[in-house]
Amino acid sequence: MELLKERIIEAGSVVSDQVVKLDAILNHQVDPALIVEMGKEFARRFIESAPTKILTIESSGIPLAFAVANELGVPFVFARRKKSVTMDENTYCERVPSFTKGIVTDIMVSSQYITPSDRVLIIDDIIANGDAARGLIRIVERSGAVLTGVGIAVEKAFQAGGRSIREQGIRTESLVTITSLENGKIHFADC
Amino acid sequence: MELLKERIIEAGSVVSDQVVKLDAILNHQVDPALIVEMGKEFARRFIESAPTKILTIESSGIPLAFAVANELGVPFVFARRKKSVTMDENTYCERVPSFTKGIVTDIMVSSQYITPSDRVLIIDDIIANGDAARGLIRIVERSGAVLTGVGIAVEKAFQAGGRSIREQGIRTESLVTITSLENGKIHFADC
Repeated sequence: MELLKERIIEAGSVVSDQVVKLDAILNHQVDPALIVEMGKEFARRFIESAPTKILTIESSGIPLAFAVANELGVPFVFARRKKSVTMDENTYCERVPSFTKGIVTDIMVSSQYITPSDRVLIIDDIIANGDAARGLIRIVERSGAVLTGVGIAVEKAFQAGGRSIREQGIRTESLVTITSLENGKIHFADC
Repeated sequence: MELLKERIIEAGSVVSDQVVKLDAILNHQVDPALIVEMGKEFARRFIESAPTKILTIESSGIPLAFAVANELGVPFVFARRKKSVTMDENTYCERVPSFTKGIVTDIMVSSQYITPSDRVLIIDDIIANGDAARGLIRIVERSGAVLTGVGIAVEKAFQAGGRSIREQGIRTESLVTITSLENGKIHFADC
């Protein structure tokens, strides 16, 4: 997605060979017009899989999930992160490490909101090692819902997350793919 | 706002005399069509104060802030919550207790995104004792920006939050006002 690529070049800052900070457009300050366009692009790519629900994880995935859900006319659910939770039979809970935060959190989704009759599209902002996305995938599997795919705004292709999910046979779409952050420079994959 | 009142009656569940759970429409699963309407209503009420930026706090405030920001054509910023943070000269940090979570968190906003030239509208989903909103207000004050007002989706009027902010002379608008949750029943203020 050329627009997102341009905005990342303009507003992104490379923190290390592994991390690019997108606080100006996605992760702290959010540009709604950009997110609406990203939502339309995801909707275009996934509308034929007929999702009935969008699933994301707090917090940075929320604006994007909102935009996709609004475009497709379906609700979205954001998984909650907790340091640790008491298990509840009405909650799907998965333990996931966070690459950027360097901590382990439990992510939780109430079984009320993802049900066996749902077709779920997972949306998230950035994929690195894919731990959060795999946690969400396990939750969808446990719920009995159909997983229609995974949509990621920014894939860091030099980390294994996107690849590992595709290897599970899950359709995974990224709006932009970053192949390297070496020497403080953002390299994108060709479209 | 009648539509929101109807949806709260339909989907809200009273947990105690103090807490109403809105997980079906606002706080876990989100209905984008409802949120878009709420965003329009806030935009209508605040457009004359000419906000240049919307400020909220993760996570439940994000969809609403997104809808308002999109309607007004301005960016939004979500404050981040941390258990504890190392102070950074480029970050405004305020310590606030959380009524629903029963813990104290630090909330943070980068000084890059709220500047003295901004006119800031604070948006949040629910106000109880108002600790989070007061934290955001202190951040706006410290930034040197103008605070144009506070917009709250659901005000619990039997707790002091909304009143205490109005007493500071800050324009505070709630879409619906709940006067009591006693005996498991939601009572609304007349419009």
